[in-house]
Amino acid sequence: MARIICAGLGPGDPDLMSVRADRALRTARCIAYFRKPGRPGMARRIVQGMLAPGCVELAMEYPVTTEIPLSDPAYNAQLSAFYDHWAERLAALPGEVVVLCEGDPFFYGSFMHLHLRLQGRCEIEVIPGITGMSGCWTATDMPIAWGDDVLTVLMGTLDEDTLAARMAGTDALVVMKTGRNLPKLRRALSRAGRLDAAWLVERGTMPGQRVQRLVDSDAEVAPYFAILLVHGQGRRPLALPRAAE
Amino acid sequence: MARIICAGLGPGDPDLMSVRADRALRTARCIAYFRKPGRPGMARRIVQGMLAPGCVELAMEYPVTTEIPLSDPAYNAQLSAFYDHWAERLAALPGEVVVLCEGDPFFYGSFMHLHLRLQGRCEIEVIPGITGMSGCWTATDMPIAWGDDVLTVLMGTLDEDTLAARMAGTDALVVMKTGRNLPKLRRALSRAGRLDAAWLVERGTMPGQRVQRLVDSDAEVAPYFAILLVHGQGRRPLALPRAAE
Ligand SMILES: C[S@@+](CC[C@H](N)C(=O)[O-])C[C@H]1O[C@@H](n2cnc3c(N)ncnc32)[C@H](O)[C@@H]1O
Ligand SMILES: C[S@@+](CC[C@H](N)C(=O)[O-])C[C@H]1O[C@@H](n2cnc3c(N)ncnc32)[C@H](O)[C@@H]1O
Repeated sequence: MARIICAGLGPGDPDLMSVRADRALRTARCIAYFRKPGRPGMARRIVQGMLAPGCVELAMEYPVTTEIPLSDPAYNAQLSAFYDHWAERLAALPGEVVVLCEGDPFFYGSFMHLHLRLQGRCEIEVIPGITGMSGCWTATDMPIAWGDDVLTVLMGTLDEDTLAARMAGTDALVVMKTGRNLPKLRRALSRAGRLDAAWLVERGTMPGQRVQRLVDSDAEVAPYFAILLVHGQGRRPLALPRAAE
Repeated sequence: MARIICAGLGPGDPDLMSVRADRALRTARCIAYFRKPGRPGMARRIVQGMLAPGCVELAMEYPVTTEIPLSDPAYNAQLSAFYDHWAERLAALPGEVVVLCEGDPFFYGSFMHLHLRLQGRCEIEVIPGITGMSGCWTATDMPIAWGDDVLTVLMGTLDEDTLAARMAGTDALVVMKTGRNLPKLRRALSRAGRLDAAWLVERGTMPGQRVQRLVDSDAEVAPYFAILLVHGQGRRPLALPRAAE
């Protein structure tokens, strides 16, 4: 039976990997990682220079889906077949494989789709990691949440009305999957009265890290690794979330 | 000028500390950590066996506040004086000091109160850490959030109505500061229709870790290190948060 270790790599800086993940990688005889076709893949870049000589590498390349809109069922079918295929392959390996996952694997990570399919088929160990958001709020040099603050984590893929309502109804805020959603996120933050308080962190703890107030950026698109933050302001009376008007 | 490094220690297992925090601790000539009077303190326990011989230890003991209700302004005044005192002392140190912080320092951590007071008075480096909640959801062996899931982080110290409304209006849920708030949290989860889906993780990744469905526990009080989780169920239509009836 195969043994799969999913190693959370943390937000990007290899020094922010856990001691356990670091050890698993340096002694790995086989690793696997997701990447877009033709790209090196961030997870693989993080472990550059750490792998033992002769370590076998399996690049799990996402299917090219640029022709299919995300809402098309064909998109989900293709992705699902892709995860099925790799679950099958990893489970059939003779020994141990270390799957790379940036951030924390069980926090919106791609590995979760393999984990679901591998239940009962092999032994799985998940090593938690520092999330991208922790790396990003540390980069702003300001705490994200104090006292009784409510913290809400949102995906930039949500619709504008939902985003605006959620942004208005929380103390501290994290928005992931920023990328092409940036203009919509600016509008939603503005409707929620939170635009001036928002920070944009691009490539937190990675080479090329950039930290700025969102109002100081005129970008229309953020990189894939970009997070919006609104820091909580500590113990104080809480407004309940309301739907945007 | 003093130099202060705040090292996030992660959820408890020393192996889950970052490589950078591990290195800072092993080479530290002076460390400081919070603890309740007469207790060893969790942060100090996590680094047991890692410190170099001769490392100077400063135990920052919280004032005894059991006589004062948390709502009394005298409680805040005492705590504030305590942080003032230690900010003063750390800033006056001749060299470098490593302040210990379990989990991630900028995520509801006590160090934040020193950080606030030390601005401009010394050089500060914060090393992010794996949060307690990441350690806890990994311990349940189930991902916390998928796709467009909204994740809400709540403190068990909030009032029952706020808790119930927030619990009803999120996909994935984390509740920290469980302790004596457990009965109130059960009622709030039940009002929100989330009781059956809730997990209780005590001492995640620490010695004595316990993971169970909340309905399988009849405890009236949880340990200080205890988190409630409701796992998100992935991409699906989102209900907006509503106030509980
Ligand atoms: C599919 S999620 C994976 C999250 C990851 N498992 C974690 O724990 O952070 C990808 C999103 O995470 C965010 N992200 C992760 N690491 C980041 C970093 N170092 N800097 C900025 N954003 C990051 C970005 O918003 C990106 O769109
Ligand atoms: C003052 S907060 C500090 C949070 C910390 N900075 C972090 O990043 O997790 C303390 C609360 O964190 C939660 N907690 C932290 N580590 C935990 C662990 N290993 N197991 C269970 N709960 C934990 C508990 O709910 C506790 O009441």
